[in-house]
Amino acid sequence: MNKSVMKVGLLGLGTVGSGTMQIIQTNQEEISRKIGSELRITKALVRDLGKERPNLDPHIQLTTDAQAIIADPEIDIVVEVMGGIEPARSYIAAALTNGKYVVTANKDLMATHGSELLLLAQKQNRGIFYEASVGGGIPLIRPIKRCLAANKILSIMGIINGTTNYILTQMTEAKKDFQDALEEAQAKGFAEADPSNDLEGRDAAYKLAILASLCFNSAVDVNQIATESITEISLRDIMYAEELGFVIKLLALGEETPEGLLLRVHPTLVPKEHPLASVSNEFNALFLKGDAVGELMFYGRGAGSLPTASAVTADIIEAARCIKHQIENGAAAIPQTAKPIVPMAESRSCFYVRLKAKDQPGVFGSVANALGDEGVSLDLIIQKRRDFNLAEIVLVTHDVPEANFYRALDRIKQIDSIRNISNVMRVLERS
Amino acid sequence: MNKSVMKVGLLGLGTVGSGTMQIIQTNQEEISRKIGSELRITKALVRDLGKERPNLDPHIQLTTDAQAIIADPEIDIVVEVMGGIEPARSYIAAALTNGKYVVTANKDLMATHGSELLLLAQKQNRGIFYEASVGGGIPLIRPIKRCLAANKILSIMGIINGTTNYILTQMTEAKKDFQDALEEAQAKGFAEADPSNDLEGRDAAYKLAILASLCFNSAVDVNQIATESITEISLRDIMYAEELGFVIKLLALGEETPEGLLLRVHPTLVPKEHPLASVSNEFNALFLKGDAVGELMFYGRGAGSLPTASAVTADIIEAARCIKHQIENGAAAIPQTAKPIVPMAESRSCFYVRLKAKDQPGVFGSVANALGDEGVSLDLIIQKRRDFNLAEIVLVTHDVPEANFYRALDRIKQIDSIRNISNVMRVLERS
Repeated sequence: MNKSVMKVGLLGLGTVGSGTMQIIQTNQEEISRKIGSELRITKALVRDLGKERPNLDPHIQLTTDAQAIIADPEIDIVVEVMGGIEPARSYIAAALTNGKYVVTANKDLMATHGSELLLLAQKQNRGIFYEASVGGGIPLIRPIKRCLAANKILSIMGIINGTTNYILTQMTEAKKDFQDALEEAQAKGFAEADPSNDLEGRDAAYKLAILASLCFNSAVDVNQIATESITEISLRDIMYAEELGFVIKLLALGEETPEGLLLRVHPTLVPKEHPLASVSNEFNALFLKGDAVGELMFYGRGAGSLPTASAVTADIIEAARCIKHQIENGAAAIPQTAKPIVPMAESRSCFYVRLKAKDQPGVFGSVANALGDEGVSLDLIIQKRRDFNLAEIVLVTHDVPEANFYRALDRIKQIDSIRNISNVMRVLERS
Repeated sequence: MNKSVMKVGLLGLGTVGSGTMQIIQTNQEEISRKIGSELRITKALVRDLGKERPNLDPHIQLTTDAQAIIADPEIDIVVEVMGGIEPARSYIAAALTNGKYVVTANKDLMATHGSELLLLAQKQNRGIFYEASVGGGIPLIRPIKRCLAANKILSIMGIINGTTNYILTQMTEAKKDFQDALEEAQAKGFAEADPSNDLEGRDAAYKLAILASLCFNSAVDVNQIATESITEISLRDIMYAEELGFVIKLLALGEETPEGLLLRVHPTLVPKEHPLASVSNEFNALFLKGDAVGELMFYGRGAGSLPTASAVTADIIEAARCIKHQIENGAAAIPQTAKPIVPMAESRSCFYVRLKAKDQPGVFGSVANALGDEGVSLDLIIQKRRDFNLAEIVLVTHDVPEANFYRALDRIKQIDSIRNISNVMRVLERS
């Protein structure tokens, strides 16, 4: 289709929508050269027509009526940057049905209704592009789909939540306690007023669902992803981890095993020499292993107006190329089935345990026996005097079945001289 | 074009060619599903028909005659994995002229004749894909071209030579001296018998030429890239760098300035907290800054049979998709002109200097004066006693014009009590 102008309608003109408008304005000439047609935003859906918008391109017509965009026969590409499940889902479905190509930055929607929308796009012989839904500006979706097309992806490990990574970095580097680090993240705009979605690992689980669906070709249900919070991590854990050669990160992990998919989000002790260990503050990274390519890592800003808009705009350019060459969403892997999920209790890990015990003869021996009785062997041990008559013991186990570890932990809890188990975290094995 | 089979001819069946054959065999079904047609290697050009090839697919016809592949009307995609400039260049040109799509892993050829071949492909309405020519299996070319399409790329910094990175990592981590580390790299297959192309930075310069052409849309002449060797780096430099908070890496750097392109390959002190600092051993990484996306890094294996073949195969799949949808090499940015190159002497850097001086009063003052007189200010200083009556002084300057720094260095050399300048390297400024 040799259109001289490609017309774009924006559903939403908030942070990402405005950023997209700004990038397209600034790079108009370069983008048009890449597409071979002029790219023009003609309409934008807003909530309030009266709001001051000092940088608004006067050629963009504002509307409060979504139909004016998704049913406009002149518009080729609909860009959904409003967020939330409804009405975004209905608008996107209607746009696809009307023959539009769709670009979305909507993580929640793609994590919960991605398969359904991808199938609809395929049925309509159109495309839906969602690079901006995970990892902000970091190219992830397209490189996985296209550049790793010759690989079977074996595992993925990501730092894909900027809020928690900022908090953990500040605890590690500035020795701030959790509460101070959280407040600083909120002051800098890296954490929301209600940060629980981030802290509990749910935001990362949504992104993991999108990535795992793509990497393992399975319709992943986000509710099947086990999540653990970072709120229990204390400065003592941070400092012991450091002493043992680790940094603590909230990792999202996905792995395909013969038994099914193992998917989880939890705080993890990462060896200092691992490439993920140096991903600091608000930065994100995805580390993956492919059967041919080996280890890869993609690193960058996982949020923010311009980085996210960079991904949205790249998707718009891709959609425009598809329209020009009359191709659908290029052989997207659309997962038709859901592979089985391996329960956490059936997985294996190395574990970090911090516990307090009465400082008396035989305590360490009884802890070691409890572990040994369940076949749990130790890799690293620290014991320090905490207070008068109280010792703090920190252990890192070798790789063991979760079930064995938790049985051993139950035995330890029953030892008389054990005061409490202060914290338990998983540990990424050193290669 | 709805072909049920896409036929591929391999020019070369060495490490990368065999790897490509192996990947396509292993993932036949998955790849065919992605393309929507069966992908089949039908012929391969070899030097010796009699050589034992135990893993050869019996359906692949071997030939010593390149014409049997590049002029075969049945073959859709020609894959050049033979290396060298000629006859690879003539073969590729003939294949394009015959209407084939071309995939190449040839760094030397793309660095020296890339613009010419890209233009020919465009003229023929075909495509030439070269992801494997830089960074082995790491997706670089396509993410830059497609995922960063909305960005102006401001600068690139890469560890794109595995041999030198392996040597420098071994010197840093195992405190091996240069010669031992080189011999180990050779024993492990990470360095060639004649390693000078790697050690002198020429291999990295070729890759930088390819990346810079793409990122800055300019026909970069590899001969205009300034290179410096790693052979002068001693363990003392490694250890001083460590003490000052740096690791030494061979970096390839490209930057677009108002005066033109600044392109260079040289050993560099990289701050330990920089993401490039943790790129170890044979791994490669490209760090870049875009005006919208901010900082990005791509990390992985820059060489090896399967990683490189992973990129070649992804390119073959891309070419097959282009054939299917009758599209050319998708709006590739083909640099028509060469932007001016900024001479090193007109650039700016922070510098590391290690020098030996007689241990007598006033020495440090005269060094400091020489620097101050040329407007060079100091960031970090170490002075240690080296031998009886001999001091070793290590300096790191702030960011200064190269010309000023070298004038100051000339002044220092003329100071009576200075025995020698042991080494000078550039330093990446901490952000």
